Amino acid sequence: MEQYSARLAKVWDWMTEESISLVMLEDTESRRDQNIRWLTGHPGDALLFLSQNRKAVLTAWDINLAKQYAGNAPVVLTAYNDFERQACKAISAVAKMLEIPLGSKIEIPSVTPYPLFLDYVGKLTDYDIICRDKGAGAQLRKFRAVKDELETAITRKAAGITNELIELLEKNVRNEKIKTEADAALLIEVEARKRGCEGTSFETLAAGPGRSFAIHAFPNWTYSGFGGDGLSILDFGVKLDGYSTDVTLTFARNLNSKQEKLVSLTEKAAKLAISMAHNGTPAKNIASAVDALFSKSKKQMPHGLGHGIGLQEHEYPLITSRSNNEWVLETGMIFTIEPGLYDPLIGGCRLENDILITETGPEILTASRIVHL
Amino acid sequence: MEQYSARLAKVWDWMTEESISLVMLEDTESRRDQNIRWLTGHPGDALLFLSQNRKAVLTAWDINLAKQYAGNAPVVLTAYNDFERQACKAISAVAKMLEIPLGSKIEIPSVTPYPLFLDYVGKLTDYDIICRDKGAGAQLRKFRAVKDELETAITRKAAGITNELIELLEKNVRNEKIKTEADAALLIEVEARKRGCEGTSFETLAAGPGRSFAIHAFPNWTYSGFGGDGLSILDFGVKLDGYSTDVTLTFARNLNSKQEKLVSLTEKAAKLAISMAHNGTPAKNIASAVDALFSKSKKQMPHGLGHGIGLQEHEYPLITSRSNNEWVLETGMIFTIEPGLYDPLIGGCRLENDILITETGPEILTASRIVHL
Repeated sequence: MEQYSARLAKVWDWMTEESISLVMLEDTESRRDQNIRWLTGHPGDALLFLSQNRKAVLTAWDINLAKQYAGNAPVVLTAYNDFERQACKAISAVAKMLEIPLGSKIEIPSVTPYPLFLDYVGKLTDYDIICRDKGAGAQLRKFRAVKDELETAITRKAAGITNELIELLEKNVRNEKIKTEADAALLIEVEARKRGCEGTSFETLAAGPGRSFAIHAFPNWTYSGFGGDGLSILDFGVKLDGYSTDVTLTFARNLNSKQEKLVSLTEKAAKLAISMAHNGTPAKNIASAVDALFSKSKKQMPHGLGHGIGLQEHEYPLITSRSNNEWVLETGMIFTIEPGLYDPLIGGCRLENDILITETGPEILTASRIVHL
Repeated sequence: MEQYSARLAKVWDWMTEESISLVMLEDTESRRDQNIRWLTGHPGDALLFLSQNRKAVLTAWDINLAKQYAGNAPVVLTAYNDFERQACKAISAVAKMLEIPLGSKIEIPSVTPYPLFLDYVGKLTDYDIICRDKGAGAQLRKFRAVKDELETAITRKAAGITNELIELLEKNVRNEKIKTEADAALLIEVEARKRGCEGTSFETLAAGPGRSFAIHAFPNWTYSGFGGDGLSILDFGVKLDGYSTDVTLTFARNLNSKQEKLVSLTEKAAKLAISMAHNGTPAKNIASAVDALFSKSKKQMPHGLGHGIGLQEHEYPLITSRSNNEWVLETGMIFTIEPGLYDPLIGGCRLENDILITETGPEILTASRIVHL
């Protein structure tokens, strides 16, 4: 399909500017990289080689799966087994296959562990091995931070399914068909796939009043009560054709005044943040405004305000108040806004929705909310 | 609890031998490390510092969760937020807190990306920053490859639950309550947690006859048929108090002679491998014997024969025929044996069980099998 050609062309152009002869991307159990799926359609466990002379070689752990998923991309398929499942041997062989000149630059992923980097440098002495934070991987994640039309359309569809699930969840908590964390989590598993999703975008986090004090409750869900007196958090997302949503509902019942305060502050923060989300706004400003709002009430949020979503559940832009956060919002970016406050004694509250930046302002794709029972 | 003191003591002794003043372990979204759970009980998202003067500091992303889970371990708790959620600042502050002498060795995880390593070295100029493959992390994984009594007892219990699920799955495929991949996967989600498990040890992989050709079908499970004519693969595990099982059943119905051949070869390979699994046997020998068996029939297995299980679903020892595999089986090791053969035209077959090495030989903890329908 033509989206793969267009995306590969972006990388090839960048490689020419940077004088990089060969880029290797890697998706393995210990180092996941959705750039390979973005560029080829292949969902994982592979190496992808891109050469400055505009060729691509996909080295897949499972060649049968690669034929099925990367069949539409302009890539040559090889099997990882052909290189004894060793990245170093694959780099060497593919560099020869693509006629990469000796002495030229080969860039490996920025997440390559230091000892493995030393190993590559020691073995691939014919080339100049480059490993850097602001290299090909970062550039790809930057490209991916602004979604193209196809990606936006898929995410809208995924958000629509998410919203159907939100309706169903609220209905079933109200009519007490959902009484436990497990009831909520399993409903999502079943109903997401019934609607054509690959699955959930991460393991659903359902925390009843006894467990909502934690940002991410552990275990993710249990058979304990959900939706009873106090605050219950439900954080979930669906994955459709690779693209994620990520929302959090809070269910509130018979709150005391301290819990009411958490809820109203969280709602206020979400409203404030979304109202500021425009093309050109530094992401840091939004997160700092929320920090300031909370600190007026002597509260502090123990996590970032939001993050991009796409082929990964956490991608760029980052919406945090950290001093080194330089992301500026752009039309086409899709990210979460998820203020939350947590207290070991009274529980926690989080409200998370997915926002698309359009030319005319923020569009709230999902319909998550604080549900007052 | 005393297991944490005993495990910490092992690391401290090793640090003295190695003249390492401070070890930093890290569990983050991009680099998971169950060593922290093994040493403290805390399930994740944290830094753990161990000093040669036998002190431990746990720096948790969620301090409330850490109080709950690491409360029994002899560690000082700090919050990651206190260090602006930056590992470098945490290292510096904790080194001061623990009075690590200037100029001494601080070891960081072997999986630290090369650019991040450079960043640490540039900022932590008061210390000698060590990052190596055969360091603290590897040593810890080596300790963990041989299970202690407590770990073996938990794994036995997890295997018992797994076996109850296997019975239930076979019964429900036979009586056609399970007709789709989703039916199988959801039964596991529900029944594992009902029996007290934290959840599954990885996302269940259910591949009906149309999808079993892939080693790991993508998506993991769908609403397509399961248990019909041909070969269906079901790969799952449960997680109990942190400890994993990992088994694969194959369901076979109305096979043609080529499919029969895959099944009989796989069964033969499993039997051969298990019979060889004794204290003192090099793991490579077992995997090579299976390779030889398959190659006599001109078949090749596209993945390793097995791997250790424990707090992670993939740990040491490795049971592969790779030339650099130096693992030798020892009493107390628990690992999978999982021969499999796959064909894009007729589907795939895998048989995986969990084996404990005892003084008298292999003990098969799980009851997975090829189910002939």
